[in-house]
Amino acid sequence: MESKVTMDKIVNLCKSRGFIFPGSEIYGGFANTWDFGPVGVELKNNIKRAWWKRFVQEDPQTYGVDAAILMNPTVWQASGHVESFGDPKMDCKNCKTRHRADTLIENHSKGKISAEGMTNEEMEAYIEEHDVRCPVCGKRDFTPIRKFNPMFTTSRAMTGDASDVVYLRPETCQGEYVNFLNVQRSTRAKVPFAIAQIGKSFRNEITPGNFLFRTIEFEQMELQKFCKEESSMETYEDYKKRAITFVENLGLKNEHLRFHDHDKLAHYAKAACDIQYLFPMGWQELNGIHHRGTWDLTRHQEFSGKNMYYLDPITNEKYIPTVIEYSIGADRLTLALLCEAYDEEQLENGETRVVMHFHPAIAPYKVAVLPLQKNLGDKAKEIYNTLIKNFMCDYDEAGSIGKRYRRQDEIGTPFCITIDFDTLEDDTVTIRDRDTMKQERINVNQLVDVIEKRIKFN
Amino acid sequence: MESKVTMDKIVNLCKSRGFIFPGSEIYGGFANTWDFGPVGVELKNNIKRAWWKRFVQEDPQTYGVDAAILMNPTVWQASGHVESFGDPKMDCKNCKTRHRADTLIENHSKGKISAEGMTNEEMEAYIEEHDVRCPVCGKRDFTPIRKFNPMFTTSRAMTGDASDVVYLRPETCQGEYVNFLNVQRSTRAKVPFAIAQIGKSFRNEITPGNFLFRTIEFEQMELQKFCKEESSMETYEDYKKRAITFVENLGLKNEHLRFHDHDKLAHYAKAACDIQYLFPMGWQELNGIHHRGTWDLTRHQEFSGKNMYYLDPITNEKYIPTVIEYSIGADRLTLALLCEAYDEEQLENGETRVVMHFHPAIAPYKVAVLPLQKNLGDKAKEIYNTLIKNFMCDYDEAGSIGKRYRRQDEIGTPFCITIDFDTLEDDTVTIRDRDTMKQERINVNQLVDVIEKRIKFN
Repeated sequence: MESKVTMDKIVNLCKSRGFIFPGSEIYGGFANTWDFGPVGVELKNNIKRAWWKRFVQEDPQTYGVDAAILMNPTVWQASGHVESFGDPKMDCKNCKTRHRADTLIENHSKGKISAEGMTNEEMEAYIEEHDVRCPVCGKRDFTPIRKFNPMFTTSRAMTGDASDVVYLRPETCQGEYVNFLNVQRSTRAKVPFAIAQIGKSFRNEITPGNFLFRTIEFEQMELQKFCKEESSMETYEDYKKRAITFVENLGLKNEHLRFHDHDKLAHYAKAACDIQYLFPMGWQELNGIHHRGTWDLTRHQEFSGKNMYYLDPITNEKYIPTVIEYSIGADRLTLALLCEAYDEEQLENGETRVVMHFHPAIAPYKVAVLPLQKNLGDKAKEIYNTLIKNFMCDYDEAGSIGKRYRRQDEIGTPFCITIDFDTLEDDTVTIRDRDTMKQERINVNQLVDVIEKRIKFN
Repeated sequence: MESKVTMDKIVNLCKSRGFIFPGSEIYGGFANTWDFGPVGVELKNNIKRAWWKRFVQEDPQTYGVDAAILMNPTVWQASGHVESFGDPKMDCKNCKTRHRADTLIENHSKGKISAEGMTNEEMEAYIEEHDVRCPVCGKRDFTPIRKFNPMFTTSRAMTGDASDVVYLRPETCQGEYVNFLNVQRSTRAKVPFAIAQIGKSFRNEITPGNFLFRTIEFEQMELQKFCKEESSMETYEDYKKRAITFVENLGLKNEHLRFHDHDKLAHYAKAACDIQYLFPMGWQELNGIHHRGTWDLTRHQEFSGKNMYYLDPITNEKYIPTVIEYSIGADRLTLALLCEAYDEEQLENGETRVVMHFHPAIAPYKVAVLPLQKNLGDKAKEIYNTLIKNFMCDYDEAGSIGKRYRRQDEIGTPFCITIDFDTLEDDTVTIRDRDTMKQERINVNQLVDVIEKRIKFN
């Protein structure tokens, strides 16, 4: 992979083939936002569905929720975000641009130094000693480091002229904590159990970038497992395994994945790690698994006055459950899967084909119907009309069959069906495999079953 | 339905059974936001999937997108929202509460008067003449009507101290207009074609209410069909039919649905109508179908400087396409389907069962596995573990079988499977139908196929 895929190629393919467009592009874009196009929206939805299937549908201990983005502002006091959330930020006095001090250090050291555990003073000293300069103007003339709270704020002028600050949630997990009691009671769940959610979060990032990697608006897929303190490390290890198995099953190669333990832990945490993926720009965080102790429920108990103790119905123990968090960015995972799937293959005729080797379960279109000649259109449409009842299905009758295969390869369609004159005679079609390019002849009435079996995510 | 269902019953059932909880409830809630619980998130996702299947997957002329919520602010100048979006608002000078003038009039007349076409002066005159009073304090002492722009604003402090206003999108459709060129080019779509989207929008509503009906944060399912002016009214009529067929197929009864033509049209529009549903609080808008002329693309051409003309590859005509918009609220539709599904049935033994008659395709759980006795748990778990690979599936071994049926009825599970001692002998189970309460005996290895067929949305 390393030799062929670059971020530029991915961005260009995504735009030209309808995966992802720059947000508000006709207005010159906006703050590194991205819009998913016709092919990309299917890819991302399929990824979200695969995650939900694996971690909610197939897990008897996990319950889903979909909480509102706008929450009572006290939530963000309880969570600590109002007081102490933020990135260490410094402004360049010369060119007036704003930078994250940790990013400056990490980029300057080409990733060799992690600023994760540094204090502001240590970062300022490093920048001075190593002559780290403004990447925009090249000067070293920074303000001292200040915290910049990346929560977007808005206000709800409800009555009269009164107004109050409302935050766009910077993380989804608070939606699980505030619903801990509601979910437990309505489902009669017993600890250990998890609450899972897929939803958008917002952070006013100073330096978004690397395509989908860091954006001001992003989608998280995460769950909070509520367990007993004694079994919390076991649960933590369990989610490390499940998390890496999941992304491997979706197609990420083991050699492009690694665990990265955090250097510095929050005072309440027993352990924290990321799974990193080898993106074209290097190893970067793909997902996190965090031991959060009883911090979250304790804080919400304190700020809401609601009792967050769990009463074990068998042992009669009463305790605030410990939380293990497993969180993965839907956009980051989409980016990783785009990078992993990308390939340029030399064909026998000397041409190169660009092909996206997606797992069939996440491929945007499952199948494309290609009549070999225009006068086969009626039969082809008949087959197409059956297939769209079951799958996302493309139809293409423009250009040579080779060209049409290339177009489907570029968007990762796992199966192409050609309709020829034999189809009219014996109701058979050829089905071509995207990866092997092999064709087989099968009966039309087998199509739905055959495709359904081959696209399953198990 | 009218006699049994009330909003209170729906709200209470939704909370107790895990459909929907008040947002941030442990903090006293927040501005009529709602969080979907374990059962509700499945219901809503199934509704969204059914819509997408019908209007995107099964329609060769429709392409999906998923655009960012935060857009370039110029979008909202082009759309007219910055200048003239808003509700006619008046403050009560006595108790300092804020009200929508049109709502005051409509409530005062018990829905007999529509304020839709009234000017501010006409509304003020009506309020004076009919002695419409403040619903909070009972006085009639209002300020004059002012426009209150319900767009939530935030800001993106990017560099230095510069900051700019950013809007939370009040509607999703601008994401389709700004991507008109990108979608057309990447898919090589020919007019007529549509771009569809499901996503969240935000409006700082003064008076949210009626549960999911009016909220400050809501999800839209909508599409914009780009067509030739000559065929636009045909397209409009076509979407009226398709829109009502869709909600009928999902289970809304025809006698609870009606078309409502708008009294007053925008200057660019040829036609506009809503489909209304008979909610417990009366007839209210469920979805809209709007003829928007060439207004949207023309405005974006003007503000972006990008050429929005479409060149017909066959006739060589060049024109800006006319837009037909079809839009339905995912939350409103969820509410309507909850109301429609709700029933209280008198059983032969004198008990009452509450049952949610959801279309199986949208039911949160498709099936529940119920071992008749605890020592049948191994076999039951074995069956359960096969089923969760295919469907959302519940498992319940607590309490009498009658109680367990009632619990599944209340969340609308279409099929219950009981495991008994015969199951151990001959690998058969009983499958009970939620609506008829009839049971049949089938082989375990047929279960997946049988259920799959019965839950299809076609």
